[in-house]
Amino acid sequence: MIDDSIRPQLGIIGGLGPLASADFYFKLTRMTQALRDSEHVPAVILSVPQLPDRTEAILGNHDGPLAPLKAAVSTLNALGVACIAMPCNTAHHWYDQLTANSQAEIIHIGAAVVAQTRRSLDRGRVAILATQGTLVSGFYQDRMSAAGFELCLPANPEFQERVDSAISLVKAGSIADAAIETERALDIAQATGADAALLGCTELSVVAASLNDVGGLVIIDSNAALARACLTWLGFSAQDARGLPTVSRLPGHDRSLRASLITLAQPCSRL
Amino acid sequence: MIDDSIRPQLGIIGGLGPLASADFYFKLTRMTQALRDSEHVPAVILSVPQLPDRTEAILGNHDGPLAPLKAAVSTLNALGVACIAMPCNTAHHWYDQLTANSQAEIIHIGAAVVAQTRRSLDRGRVAILATQGTLVSGFYQDRMSAAGFELCLPANPEFQERVDSAISLVKAGSIADAAIETERALDIAQATGADAALLGCTELSVVAASLNDVGGLVIIDSNAALARACLTWLGFSAQDARGLPTVSRLPGHDRSLRASLITLAQPCSRL
Repeated sequence: MIDDSIRPQLGIIGGLGPLASADFYFKLTRMTQALRDSEHVPAVILSVPQLPDRTEAILGNHDGPLAPLKAAVSTLNALGVACIAMPCNTAHHWYDQLTANSQAEIIHIGAAVVAQTRRSLDRGRVAILATQGTLVSGFYQDRMSAAGFELCLPANPEFQERVDSAISLVKAGSIADAAIETERALDIAQATGADAALLGCTELSVVAASLNDVGGLVIIDSNAALARACLTWLGFSAQDARGLPTVSRLPGHDRSLRASLITLAQPCSRL
Repeated sequence: MIDDSIRPQLGIIGGLGPLASADFYFKLTRMTQALRDSEHVPAVILSVPQLPDRTEAILGNHDGPLAPLKAAVSTLNALGVACIAMPCNTAHHWYDQLTANSQAEIIHIGAAVVAQTRRSLDRGRVAILATQGTLVSGFYQDRMSAAGFELCLPANPEFQERVDSAISLVKAGSIADAAIETERALDIAQATGADAALLGCTELSVVAASLNDVGGLVIIDSNAALARACLTWLGFSAQDARGLPTVSRLPGHDRSLRASLITLAQPCSRL
């Protein structure tokens, strides 16, 4: 099926969304200790933006994305990859079903994030910025608690509204406005006692390098954590990398979202 | 071989080098007029950084990269793509041999660049910043001349030295230093009468958004031109996009290259 001369080691299920995948590929490359092409990871990115929306499926209690995700895993296995990464947190809702039929190891983004959090923080309260689908799936709550971190999900509904808005803005290409929305969510998290904030949606990883004010919070980038975990699993040396800095806005893609924020600090929900 | 639910339309032979491919994927995504994931191009990137060096092969008069490039084309065809892009100018040396066995159209980066140059410039003298392999291959000289543009390759040997240095620096991850080297090459091109400069190596496309001083030259980015050509061929609407801005440097990857430049303006070679 594939010639040994071009066999990939890492398979990536991408396009969920495409900018988040480009960010992952960019960080994977920037984090690899390499001075020339041949020192980088041979990889294949299957970019499948046509998949049904993951959060809609989880909230609607159906498995629409599962069959195409399984097909992607099968194709990557047929291409001979040793391990697989999904730079989409929400898609990990179906992780167990996907690993069941994969010879290649699927690196769980949640495990990668917990390892990264441990490198950044001994203990403390971690706010999770993620899709509603990821939150319902619950794997971050389980894994963070099991690792000894306290969870902080602000009760103020504006927190999730800002997170959802930031994710949609990245998907629409408006990175600068998404950064503003993310900073608002971080404000609320910080005001409700968080020590760290997990960018637990890879759209928010795109925004990571564009954040100007994070209010002293430790920021954990799920895309960067996953890239590091893949490099380590494959035996490559990893180094720190910054993400995609703010890029200029494109015509027709920006909305005016600079309305002033009324921060209503409310106590955290302890999960 | 691949399920219809995840079939890619665009196949990308990437990893030549990896940062150049990440830049291409990023620009392809940023240039797509889309507000949500499903409006983007389903694609597959086969990242093959393990391929033999293209310029070494051309200068050494051997075809080492051809067999693995053919294998990549076969794999992408087997995955059902409609067209193929190679975000590596030098690899186009083997374009005719690759198209011979490909059902999928291979979009020639040279054709994409000439179309982009026509959008930017009515006529004038174009300097080509490319690998020595691409220059020996000669397809830019042929295509630009056929399109009515005058070519300007500065006789000053420092021009090509700066270009080669910039390309190596990008491969080693030092984008900021590569930008300085590229600006030096652009200085020489401008001093010898160029109206426009083609970043005819996709490593230099990575640097495009980090250039501060281009001396009034019209800059043509081969990666952006190829991304636009792919979108157009596939029937997607394209918009302008900026590339990857300068990112912070990584430890152990920078060299001190800020030695002052002695610009010895010499007449262009008319090719």
